[in-house]
Amino acid sequence: MTAEFELDRDTRVVREGDAFVAEISGGWSIGTAPNGGYLAAILVRAMAEVSPLPDPFSTTVHYVRTATPGPASVTVESIRVGHRHSTFAARLVQGGIEVARAISTFGALDSLEGPTVVPLAAPDLQTPDACVSGRPGPTSVLPIAQRVDMRIPRGEASWTEGAKSGRSELCGWVRFADHRPVDPLALLFFADAFPPPVLNLDEAAASWVPTLELTVHLRRRPSPGWIRGRFRTRALIGGYLDEDGELWDDRGELVAMSRQLARLQRA
Amino acid sequence: MTAEFELDRDTRVVREGDAFVAEISGGWSIGTAPNGGYLAAILVRAMAEVSPLPDPFSTTVHYVRTATPGPASVTVESIRVGHRHSTFAARLVQGGIEVARAISTFGALDSLEGPTVVPLAAPDLQTPDACVSGRPGPTSVLPIAQRVDMRIPRGEASWTEGAKSGRSELCGWVRFADHRPVDPLALLFFADAFPPPVLNLDEAAASWVPTLELTVHLRRRPSPGWIRGRFRTRALIGGYLDEDGELWDDRGELVAMSRQLARLQRA
Repeated sequence: MTAEFELDRDTRVVREGDAFVAEISGGWSIGTAPNGGYLAAILVRAMAEVSPLPDPFSTTVHYVRTATPGPASVTVESIRVGHRHSTFAARLVQGGIEVARAISTFGALDSLEGPTVVPLAAPDLQTPDACVSGRPGPTSVLPIAQRVDMRIPRGEASWTEGAKSGRSELCGWVRFADHRPVDPLALLFFADAFPPPVLNLDEAAASWVPTLELTVHLRRRPSPGWIRGRFRTRALIGGYLDEDGELWDDRGELVAMSRQLARLQRA
Repeated sequence: MTAEFELDRDTRVVREGDAFVAEISGGWSIGTAPNGGYLAAILVRAMAEVSPLPDPFSTTVHYVRTATPGPASVTVESIRVGHRHSTFAARLVQGGIEVARAISTFGALDSLEGPTVVPLAAPDLQTPDACVSGRPGPTSVLPIAQRVDMRIPRGEASWTEGAKSGRSELCGWVRFADHRPVDPLALLFFADAFPPPVLNLDEAAASWVPTLELTVHLRRRPSPGWIRGRFRTRALIGGYLDEDGELWDDRGELVAMSRQLARLQRA
């Protein structure tokens, strides 16, 4: 029996009657709350069990209650199954209560046919070895930091270095601590794994930045190796913030884009 | 009886048993297809009928089939009704077939309490009177163009002027042709009303750019007057494209942000 990677083990879904059962791990949490990208990966794995097409092109998750480590179930509804695209909804339920709702449209990355033009350039970062190692975070209790190998250039997570930069952007490298290969599921998770760039603002004295809604667009199948992330908050308004993300693979190709709406929350 | 504005008349939903009935107008179409932002407005109006909170903070719609002008029904499901946020799903159905699925989290814009920092500046545009009047588009049949008063600075919609700019961005002004005031529903519609900036690329020889998924974040209640839009496609990959939007009100305040995944389609 081959060893299973941590993300695959902790997002496993098993069909039982009309639903899938899952076990939410405490190993991917920010403080005590399971990370939103991790929960998205569970929801997408359940939808992938039903989808005839392999790749989640666009996934949106609304987080309506804080999930807790322990048993959960996922129910999947087919909205439309088509030749080119198939769309599903999924509910993540704990103790009879819904904690998250997703919609995802699947397609096949390997059969794209149209033109390609990417005006953007990949972020030009110091090598991973020249960066600060470890996932910086708003709290000292970060189980998720044990699961990812994150490298952040000095100055990008300024709130961990004393003086805030006032610039709500953040770039860095990420891969799995257990060397799990990158794939679309990994990108969904990485889209919400970096610390929030809004914490670089003096005005953002939050201890936690819970996500209300996360959308991830999968654009290309990633090549093996490090993933580079670039994240930016363009507007913090009344405590609510957008966070825009780009993920780039080892060849320097854009592989995913994300957008979330989140809220500053004090402890 | 006061006259009803076109958008309000054409997004009206009437409760009948467990569902709402609606009539999809042909007046908001791109070619023969009802515009995605218009359909989003119908879905949000039905959810607003059920929501105790007034404002759709984050709305995602997946368009799974092309809608057609004519009768439709909307069913709304409450996912969670809370004090600060309430989340709903809604299905748009025609002839027993689902054409679009939405999720929306509502809140109250007038009770935001946290800090505000907006590093972005509003687009600096020529005055509306100095711009090209009318909504430019990929086809000559654009019913939607009669419903909006759109003003685009010269060069922004370069494909309508002979030589493509190669720059997948587009800015412009918009308001309703019938002078309907702007409000959150209007912003949902405007987020998908501008022509696609991807058409400024030489490689984008599409006649139609259908939206797979549209997400709109409502950030502030808009002041009366013109809305400025700034739209950008960062990556066209295998015929699929993101489109990022910002909407700014007459005071120069950011009022909404959008992101969509769309696909180039030849006639």
